[in-house]
Amino acid sequence: MDISALVSDARAGRPRAVARLISLVEDESPHLRAVAAALTPYVGRARVLGLTGPPGVGKSTSTSVLISAFREQDLRVGVLAIDPSSPFSGGALLGDRIRMHDHATDPAVFIRSMATRGHLGGLATATPQALRVLDAAGCDVVLIETVGVGQSEVDIVGLADTTVVLLAPGMGDGVQAAKAGILEVADVFVVNKADRDGAAQTVRDLRHMISLGSHSSWRQPIVRTVASAGEGVSDVVAALDAHREWLVSHGELAGRRARRAAREIEAIAVASLRSRLDGEALAGLASKVAAGELDPYSAADLLIADL
Amino acid sequence: MDISALVSDARAGRPRAVARLISLVEDESPHLRAVAAALTPYVGRARVLGLTGPPGVGKSTSTSVLISAFREQDLRVGVLAIDPSSPFSGGALLGDRIRMHDHATDPAVFIRSMATRGHLGGLATATPQALRVLDAAGCDVVLIETVGVGQSEVDIVGLADTTVVLLAPGMGDGVQAAKAGILEVADVFVVNKADRDGAAQTVRDLRHMISLGSHSSWRQPIVRTVASAGEGVSDVVAALDAHREWLVSHGELAGRRARRAAREIEAIAVASLRSRLDGEALAGLASKVAAGELDPYSAADLLIADL
Repeated sequence: MDISALVSDARAGRPRAVARLISLVEDESPHLRAVAAALTPYVGRARVLGLTGPPGVGKSTSTSVLISAFREQDLRVGVLAIDPSSPFSGGALLGDRIRMHDHATDPAVFIRSMATRGHLGGLATATPQALRVLDAAGCDVVLIETVGVGQSEVDIVGLADTTVVLLAPGMGDGVQAAKAGILEVADVFVVNKADRDGAAQTVRDLRHMISLGSHSSWRQPIVRTVASAGEGVSDVVAALDAHREWLVSHGELAGRRARRAAREIEAIAVASLRSRLDGEALAGLASKVAAGELDPYSAADLLIADL
Repeated sequence: MDISALVSDARAGRPRAVARLISLVEDESPHLRAVAAALTPYVGRARVLGLTGPPGVGKSTSTSVLISAFREQDLRVGVLAIDPSSPFSGGALLGDRIRMHDHATDPAVFIRSMATRGHLGGLATATPQALRVLDAAGCDVVLIETVGVGQSEVDIVGLADTTVVLLAPGMGDGVQAAKAGILEVADVFVVNKADRDGAAQTVRDLRHMISLGSHSSWRQPIVRTVASAGEGVSDVVAALDAHREWLVSHGELAGRRARRAAREIEAIAVASLRSRLDGEALAGLASKVAAGELDPYSAADLLIADL
């Protein structure tokens, strides 16, 4: 396989080459290392945006209208739609995403769904690599959208330069429940479906949370949208731009990206170490642990000593 | 700290000692290894049941009535209620579990909620250790109940000897979406709220799925319940007993438990290797990767070479 030709084609904006590279990354192809090395000179240019929120808040619609807004600025856009809750909901994903089909024929928009294929570790390593592909392929903006708001989603949107948390009215309990984690990951809050009853209350709840929890010089804005009607989208774009400026002026962008790289390297290193563990030795130790002859910590020590 | 005295107290059925041991396990106490070693001679006796299903199907109610059924057989029962979707929903958990308070004053029932505390890896190692505590403490049955049906929940219920998947009528889409993953983990299906419209359809859908997907000599039964009224619970218990007999007569119980132990050992070994990675070296490599001077795979190699 001619990796450098594939990378050249991807950089020339050929969607099939981009898709092929992401597949190599997702399938943990033996060419993975060569792909990563070939992409390296071309990465670091894209703005990376994360978008998360509970089911039903309108994430796909919001993503779609954001894509349109970026396209009006003539930016190239990549989208990674991540579903860490597979295998149980993987199949349902594509139906939800029908709205993104608005952009299916636009050659300057590349959309890709990624599911876990059975292990979270896989997604944790594949997502940053896929991001790297889209970055090198010349996307000005890469949107990472997740399906839910669990820990694994939070880890994934943590890859972004700027993270948008979407909420909607009538999910007050969700907001309460979310208190702890949501403040840590959100750079921008969007209250979508803002024409519905309860929108003002949701905004008040959020404002209260922010007043309690913010420890940064960046004060998270709350933007109201009706994504299905395109309302408020320019305010979201403005909030994203303001956060971008804050990141740069406070030296935070480099810090975030270094932390992202650190997590990526660590995930690869851990996967590599895991693959070196001796499966046969593990099976023998497991039988002893299951029989109550050995405790699992001593077994792990013996397994590591084998390395 | 006198670990062996704590273990003796736990084995004598003192709930505070059991709670204390689980806290040591959850907090990744330095005494963790000593606890695991002290428990080892006493584990392997408990039946381990997993219970999972989408939100709203009545998992807590079902758990509560199952506890009652086991108590009628004079069995000691432990419950681990797991919430891998924290930090976003951790706070909501306890409210849902109010029904379990029926058993709060029964000294032969021990109930414990466990949340991720911010990293899934923690729960993946803590849950099997907590299970080990309840097993050694003389629980005849340990029920592991999860909040949702994502990949991490599936991984956790995979610790069980027998896994029950709960569904409810009117979640047809959920059933469709769940097709792929659900068959692999369910040993027993329960259609709860079976007095509602659509129950027959849900059962038919399930039966169809099972006819397509089952590759084992164990044919997953479908039990109808109205847990809130206690209806069908004895049928669930009968199905659990039948699966238990199948596991034993087919030599599957030992196999499942060895696989559980293997995953537990592997998780501990990987966590241990991860902790040995050099944080300072990682930060330096991460800066280079973020700057596009190095690819993450080469960086991971360099990090591992440092070990």
